Amino acid sequence: MSSTRLTGALAKLAAKLAADFGSDSVSLCPDTLRAFAADESHGLPSLPGLVFWASSTAHIERALSLCSALEIPVTPSGARTGKSGGAIPTHGGLALSLERMNRILDLSPGDMVAVCEPGVITADLIRAAQSRSLFYPPDPASLEECTLGGNVAENAGGPRAFKYGVTGDYVLGLEVVLMSGERLRTGHRSIKGVAGYDLTSLFVGSEGTLGVVSEITLKLLPLPREVATALFAFPSVAHAARAVSAILDSGFLPRTLELLDDTAIRAVNGPGVDLPPNTGAALILELDGDERQSLQNGLTRLARTCELHGLCESRIATDEGDRQRLWQARQRVARALKELKPLKFSEDIAVPRSRIEQAIERVKALGAQCDLLTATYGHAGDGNLHVNFLYDREEQIPRVERAVEGLMDIALELCGTITGEHGVGVTKKRFLPKEIGDQSLHLHRQLKKIFDPKGLLNPAKIFE
Amino acid sequence: MSSTRLTGALAKLAAKLAADFGSDSVSLCPDTLRAFAADESHGLPSLPGLVFWASSTAHIERALSLCSALEIPVTPSGARTGKSGGAIPTHGGLALSLERMNRILDLSPGDMVAVCEPGVITADLIRAAQSRSLFYPPDPASLEECTLGGNVAENAGGPRAFKYGVTGDYVLGLEVVLMSGERLRTGHRSIKGVAGYDLTSLFVGSEGTLGVVSEITLKLLPLPREVATALFAFPSVAHAARAVSAILDSGFLPRTLELLDDTAIRAVNGPGVDLPPNTGAALILELDGDERQSLQNGLTRLARTCELHGLCESRIATDEGDRQRLWQARQRVARALKELKPLKFSEDIAVPRSRIEQAIERVKALGAQCDLLTATYGHAGDGNLHVNFLYDREEQIPRVERAVEGLMDIALELCGTITGEHGVGVTKKRFLPKEIGDQSLHLHRQLKKIFDPKGLLNPAKIFE
Repeated sequence: MSSTRLTGALAKLAAKLAADFGSDSVSLCPDTLRAFAADESHGLPSLPGLVFWASSTAHIERALSLCSALEIPVTPSGARTGKSGGAIPTHGGLALSLERMNRILDLSPGDMVAVCEPGVITADLIRAAQSRSLFYPPDPASLEECTLGGNVAENAGGPRAFKYGVTGDYVLGLEVVLMSGERLRTGHRSIKGVAGYDLTSLFVGSEGTLGVVSEITLKLLPLPREVATALFAFPSVAHAARAVSAILDSGFLPRTLELLDDTAIRAVNGPGVDLPPNTGAALILELDGDERQSLQNGLTRLARTCELHGLCESRIATDEGDRQRLWQARQRVARALKELKPLKFSEDIAVPRSRIEQAIERVKALGAQCDLLTATYGHAGDGNLHVNFLYDREEQIPRVERAVEGLMDIALELCGTITGEHGVGVTKKRFLPKEIGDQSLHLHRQLKKIFDPKGLLNPAKIFE
Repeated sequence: MSSTRLTGALAKLAAKLAADFGSDSVSLCPDTLRAFAADESHGLPSLPGLVFWASSTAHIERALSLCSALEIPVTPSGARTGKSGGAIPTHGGLALSLERMNRILDLSPGDMVAVCEPGVITADLIRAAQSRSLFYPPDPASLEECTLGGNVAENAGGPRAFKYGVTGDYVLGLEVVLMSGERLRTGHRSIKGVAGYDLTSLFVGSEGTLGVVSEITLKLLPLPREVATALFAFPSVAHAARAVSAILDSGFLPRTLELLDDTAIRAVNGPGVDLPPNTGAALILELDGDERQSLQNGLTRLARTCELHGLCESRIATDEGDRQRLWQARQRVARALKELKPLKFSEDIAVPRSRIEQAIERVKALGAQCDLLTATYGHAGDGNLHVNFLYDREEQIPRVERAVEGLMDIALELCGTITGEHGVGVTKKRFLPKEIGDQSLHLHRQLKKIFDPKGLLNPAKIFE
């Protein structure tokens, strides 16, 4: 559509939405538009023409059917904490914010189910569940800001995904508004159900390109009675990677198994963390279960196992304060890297578990080759590594981009994936065909066409 | 297609397949055709025109591209243990057997991944994994006969699904042959991955209507070090249902939580089972974890919890022989019901957990109304109930069918589903629109059209 026609159509849309839902539901204010132009990825910001805050499913229906009629592109938006540009309005048009739909509609200990609007902050659900002795495991790093709708769109993971799986493993059913403005229900409130195709899973991880999620039915678990946490320090990533295998071989299924490489440790080490100076890698692991003593015994046993793999120090938390201290190393890392170098490009790949050591070695070689410092940390249990390229000046970006390209090749050559949990969005779109191939891409396009024949919903995300 | 044309086309297909892959890869023998006409459901048997045993992906490709060109319907077939008629060749044509593709291609402790052909018997994978200290949790009742391909097609569950999830939760990736004869790869070998739409989940549970699965990449877990088993007897289902809630409220996540109602208990009780005569319901539960003593303590604590809900007897297994004895009650039930009445219709619904008691009560009332004895047992943890209508003579089938219809209404009225783990196939096709609605059904048809535009692959399954 020509930009003049789009401007006219947007004016019409703004007027109709304001008339129907009040003037505080829309904004054309430049500051607001700017706020909706970017997320937490490296994707190029792009201004929407209009922001609309939906407060109910009916609002979403109305907005989408108007946009469909007026042929206005729509970009759904949660907390804009995404790391791959899924919420960037690359084609302008409407930014459809779900952040006001933030109610937990139902939290049922009897059914062990929560029903939530898409704008609920992830940590709010975790806390609400906990207050009823229930457990919502997915814990993306941004859990205090990100929304469940965004988590569903990206199929977000987190450290606990190793034992408990990712967001999609908890989605029992969805209410989705299609681009036509029609409301669709998928899935069920029962824990199991196999009636028909799994449309729920098709929407999960589709990055807002197939429909706008307006309600989410989530499975909850009993809250584990006890959690025990340990930090194990190793001389090198190679030692730590072998320790990971040994831990899993011994029949334990830790709920988290986080890894930090030498650069990450250099960044976070210092008062409060105090790792031995020769530490070249660290693992932070947690067991959960019924009895504290049994978990502590387990960690002690695992420390002994790790001694065969060069363990230089083990710390086992004995109370909540201790636990928090052990986690500091991991929680500080994203920020601490900025103290090593002012700028960073943070990437997300996953490889089969046996390839972790090789992946980190190759990342280091790649960094050296591109003259960039690299730091790798992440979820060693499931081979999901966050690779960071650290740099000093904007002019170095072309070099960083070359390194990212090399990283994607490494992930695929090691039988892994270009994205473990951040999604494709705009930032990894050019790499997707390499991973899934032309035939799958063709199927993706046909699927998209069923749900959004005019290509108006979050256009040009995941694939062209 | 006219039946004469179909016969001619089948003769051509048989000749080509025999020429390409040897005469022992095809059969037109009436006994063989009869064996492939039915599965373990109540679906009306229907003869295929030809059976072809594929021994490799290339064989499947060739068979499907020939059938596509000759417009011959194809019904993929594993061990034919399905309970909803998914493997019945309702439209004749080719029965494509995958049972000769029964190799475990890779079992990697390092990656904790298995790569299997679709004809691998489920229990064979479980045992192979166990021999490497790995764990493949899905355990459908037919695990000694059923195949992984069938498990994927139906998204099979089992008792351990309560803690560990169903087949689909373990499928990392698939190789699928589409009706066009093209080979497609979905998913990844890494544990996590969110690159593009989740085509893997779209194939899982699609009952062989979208493609023929030729290779399956499965996630494995560390083998739990210890398992502890208990049987708790209660005076009534109402007591047992409340005990289930109390167990989950106490923060335990048992790996199985199986329920038997009074009729089921009446059927299995006797030497070797020896439940108290007043037993009206029983739970069989298992905890798994790292330390035996901790698990035994857990079961003792749960027994105390259940005392508040009328527990009449608790038995906690102390060795493997004990465990097997406790499981006898559950394992015998399907067969034992035939001793109460010679014929039975076995159904599969799931309801939200808080509705279990109500569901079983309503099933009893429905049985009384239709003058049929009912027995309900199944996976109480996830609300997945197997309801059996017992009867004496074939003439009573219309009455049974009325009861089944009533049962589906009960499942849906209680916000549940018409099938928890057996699939829709042919036997539940008429109920599906009631559950998912017209709009979803329309989407199902459009999805089917992408993958199988001529409607030749397992035609008329799930929906018309």
